[in-house]
Amino acid sequence: MQPLRRTAPFLRQFRSTRPSTFCPTSRIGHSRSQSTQAATTSATSEPFQPDPDSGVKGSGAEASKIKYTVDSYTKLKRDSRFKQLDAEDVNYFRDLLGSEQAVLDGVTKENADLEGYNADWMRKFRGKSQLVLSPSSTEQVSKILKYCNEKLLAVVPQGGNTGLVGGSVPVFDEIVLSLNRMNKIRSFDDISGIFVCDAGVILENADNFLREKGNIFPLDLGAKGSCHVGGNVATNAGGLRLLRYGSLHGNVLGIEAVLPDGTIVDDLSKLRKNNTGYDLKHLFIGGEGTIGVITAISILCPQRSEAINVAYFGLSSYDKVQRAFREAKKKLGEILSAFELMDGSSQRIFSTVSGTKLPLEGEHPFYVLIETAGSNGEHDSEKLEAFLEHVMSEEIVDDGVVAQDGAQQGELWRCREGVTETLGHWGGVYKYDLSIPIAQLYDLVTEMKQRMKDRDLIGEGKPVVDVVGYGHMGDGNLHLNIATRKWDKEVEKVIEPFVYEWVGERNGSISAEHGLGLAKKDYVGYSKSGTMLKLIKQLKDLYDPNGIMNPYKYI
Amino acid sequence: MQPLRRTAPFLRQFRSTRPSTFCPTSRIGHSRSQSTQAATTSATSEPFQPDPDSGVKGSGAEASKIKYTVDSYTKLKRDSRFKQLDAEDVNYFRDLLGSEQAVLDGVTKENADLEGYNADWMRKFRGKSQLVLSPSSTEQVSKILKYCNEKLLAVVPQGGNTGLVGGSVPVFDEIVLSLNRMNKIRSFDDISGIFVCDAGVILENADNFLREKGNIFPLDLGAKGSCHVGGNVATNAGGLRLLRYGSLHGNVLGIEAVLPDGTIVDDLSKLRKNNTGYDLKHLFIGGEGTIGVITAISILCPQRSEAINVAYFGLSSYDKVQRAFREAKKKLGEILSAFELMDGSSQRIFSTVSGTKLPLEGEHPFYVLIETAGSNGEHDSEKLEAFLEHVMSEEIVDDGVVAQDGAQQGELWRCREGVTETLGHWGGVYKYDLSIPIAQLYDLVTEMKQRMKDRDLIGEGKPVVDVVGYGHMGDGNLHLNIATRKWDKEVEKVIEPFVYEWVGERNGSISAEHGLGLAKKDYVGYSKSGTMLKLIKQLKDLYDPNGIMNPYKYI
Repeated sequence: MQPLRRTAPFLRQFRSTRPSTFCPTSRIGHSRSQSTQAATTSATSEPFQPDPDSGVKGSGAEASKIKYTVDSYTKLKRDSRFKQLDAEDVNYFRDLLGSEQAVLDGVTKENADLEGYNADWMRKFRGKSQLVLSPSSTEQVSKILKYCNEKLLAVVPQGGNTGLVGGSVPVFDEIVLSLNRMNKIRSFDDISGIFVCDAGVILENADNFLREKGNIFPLDLGAKGSCHVGGNVATNAGGLRLLRYGSLHGNVLGIEAVLPDGTIVDDLSKLRKNNTGYDLKHLFIGGEGTIGVITAISILCPQRSEAINVAYFGLSSYDKVQRAFREAKKKLGEILSAFELMDGSSQRIFSTVSGTKLPLEGEHPFYVLIETAGSNGEHDSEKLEAFLEHVMSEEIVDDGVVAQDGAQQGELWRCREGVTETLGHWGGVYKYDLSIPIAQLYDLVTEMKQRMKDRDLIGEGKPVVDVVGYGHMGDGNLHLNIATRKWDKEVEKVIEPFVYEWVGERNGSISAEHGLGLAKKDYVGYSKSGTMLKLIKQLKDLYDPNGIMNPYKYI
Repeated sequence: MQPLRRTAPFLRQFRSTRPSTFCPTSRIGHSRSQSTQAATTSATSEPFQPDPDSGVKGSGAEASKIKYTVDSYTKLKRDSRFKQLDAEDVNYFRDLLGSEQAVLDGVTKENADLEGYNADWMRKFRGKSQLVLSPSSTEQVSKILKYCNEKLLAVVPQGGNTGLVGGSVPVFDEIVLSLNRMNKIRSFDDISGIFVCDAGVILENADNFLREKGNIFPLDLGAKGSCHVGGNVATNAGGLRLLRYGSLHGNVLGIEAVLPDGTIVDDLSKLRKNNTGYDLKHLFIGGEGTIGVITAISILCPQRSEAINVAYFGLSSYDKVQRAFREAKKKLGEILSAFELMDGSSQRIFSTVSGTKLPLEGEHPFYVLIETAGSNGEHDSEKLEAFLEHVMSEEIVDDGVVAQDGAQQGELWRCREGVTETLGHWGGVYKYDLSIPIAQLYDLVTEMKQRMKDRDLIGEGKPVVDVVGYGHMGDGNLHLNIATRKWDKEVEKVIEPFVYEWVGERNGSISAEHGLGLAKKDYVGYSKSGTMLKLIKQLKDLYDPNGIMNPYKYI
């Protein structure tokens, strides 16, 4: 390797390779976040997930074609303690909300619009709710829950309904409590950067508002055009900015929520420091609506970084990927905002299926996408150049390109974000969203591929097309994907429970960022001890003794 | 103002002004952190706090001169449900711990060493415990608590005993459970930066270990030479790095803890992302040992920044301080690591009492100390220069200096950190650690001073010397201090409950970073609603139904 020869042209060798035939399917969200949705939040542990090709939210006609959840999960039985909705209940809610549009009623009349709230966008889950309520105030939410708790009516809180584990749609006839109409920005302090809004504000709207102030919402994910910030907090969404800005547990300063008995948890603190008692809000962050409904949030929003750089590398081994990550943290320090891993298979499939020429010549066993975000473009470029010189001269990286403008940045990101959709090309994908200690993270992909080879299940004419790994390496978050030609019982047996056992043995997480919902409920024991499960159930019983909140899910 | 003339010399005009007569009292901690202790963690809401002049930890003879807590807090009565310790209990613990040094026993024999564990370093609180246990494993902690819970023996967990609100020392005869002997570093992953250690590891030892790896513990405070990381987590310590690295709720990835019934909470996750059930660890962060004992922590430790810059400014109004903060966030962005406010009075007193010449000529109504920490010294200096040019040319800042080396940085920091100790020069100080929305933060100081003037209580020959404000402005954290010549009932009545009411009306916090302990227990209602207090008590009852954990404190 000749670092001096390579370094200079390295920074400029990137040529625009706009894809000609590949066009990511239009779904929820928008442009870049579009495909990110798939990449960052679409993995589930459900067997054989057909690659979804259209959104369903609000589309009753489309939704009515989806199989009912109870027909897939045949072991689930409706909890007989729950009351069946009747006209009297509907009248109560109509009086309470005082608005025709706030009550979608299928009890006293046919209502096709209900279907859009019953089904999820992946077309995997569909409930049978006959009532959707859209309150416009925290007091209304309180009265709804109090009534439901007294009457034993089960409730599913629903934000943007962009989840990936079936957590936001009903299973049986639970009432859907939609936060759609609670969508006001309450306040923003431009000195402290503290932003307060209703739970039903769409993430992108919040971020656009903040952009004008020079700030940024410390969370970004593909569904930003549809998802609600309340839902983000309720599911402790991870996404693309976690490496830089940390988790919602660090950024959310306060919440307002309603408990099943109607109690309003008024903890909407606008303070960075407040050591006055147990910090209860954290139970709602990632609580997936099982102990109450978040109605507003207060969150710290940092300064928006004006300068963005994106680079894309080829590397010869996972060991070198780890070395590159260590060097990126050292040399890029405070400006490193993404470190994404894609293995050779994932890039080969992306390129073949989408017809996109990859940014680098030749094939590399591993690829890495790095993003920096800082306040001074010149400084950032200098840091990036120093990093590149180092990783090239040390032969940590074999080849690489740096985007010269925003369009090229988008093209590099597409190599990462486009993977998920192209994997579905042959029929279906088994998808897993896992946290694994970084040193062992890729071993799972290697072992899984070997298992398929050993059983002669992979390759031309075999059920499995390929086993690929990619994900938010900086967060220790692997998306393991097994692309298949058709559903195959044999394949499924080779994958599960092996994948959960493997992760459990390494103290990993079977759900890094997507939550549990209905899809992962049965596997949580691989990531939590019996003691922890007991303590979690104890809290559920404390706050929701009647079990009306989002039943049949979580734990 | 002539920006061009001023900008260039501005950066070099700082002359060393090492203090000749001022020498901060040696206490716990070390050198710089020494005075930081006072600055960042010494405020309490107790009336008339004599400025402490010597540490007590481990010094039984010194401690025995301190007034018993029950003689100051005469309303406190020993809970009669609790069993009195007897020889049988002591024997049980001696057998269990199997070591003479792990059991300090005052039940069956005189033991002067007990005093060091009974009293706090401020010499404000002193309990009457007759037993100190120092287990060496989580299993031993579990067995101790199980025994105590069954026998109804009350327990106070104790880390480095550097707290400021009397939370870590007994009130009556509670058993002290010291984490001193649980002081092992368990693991460090130099790729992810995830560090795992026993709760009893001293913060400075953890940080020194991490320094060698190129990482940093994301928390720094004055007591670092004595305090335990477990105690830091149990009190949700804030300190000096919060502006840059965020709170412990964001950085702590897992904990191991023991509940009163002996249950070991095995939640020592080493993952950045893990969405599998309620995140229970947050109840222990800031729980002040009232629901269990933290025995180990797992924490994310960022890359250490090699380049540090410190600057010190004079400003003409609080409005300009706020503008300077906004500009610092914009222009310094990701490298801003501290933004500290000191009012003119605080700097005048510091200078007069310590005999230190201030770094700037003339008097300014407000002073600000800014620190940057980044990965590239040249870039950081350029950013700082651009910021300085801007705030000077815009006349946001009247005058300023930038430190040229580490020694000068220390001198600038001393102007901030030395304040607390010099305030005690005349006798005593009323101290409050408050979170207030930034825009209103300084109003409290102005109003308090006016109250003293209106009642003719302030000035030469009057009880009050001055009312001063300083603190972690970047975090909205004000340290309000009222320096007095002697204890005066009239003065106290003017301050309280006014200060709590004022903060409560603005939805501030009566304890920003110091916690509640015994000292603030009665005032928590000003920062938490009745609903929140009810929910907090409900959790306490759930985990500690017998109330044996750290009784008489918190809420």
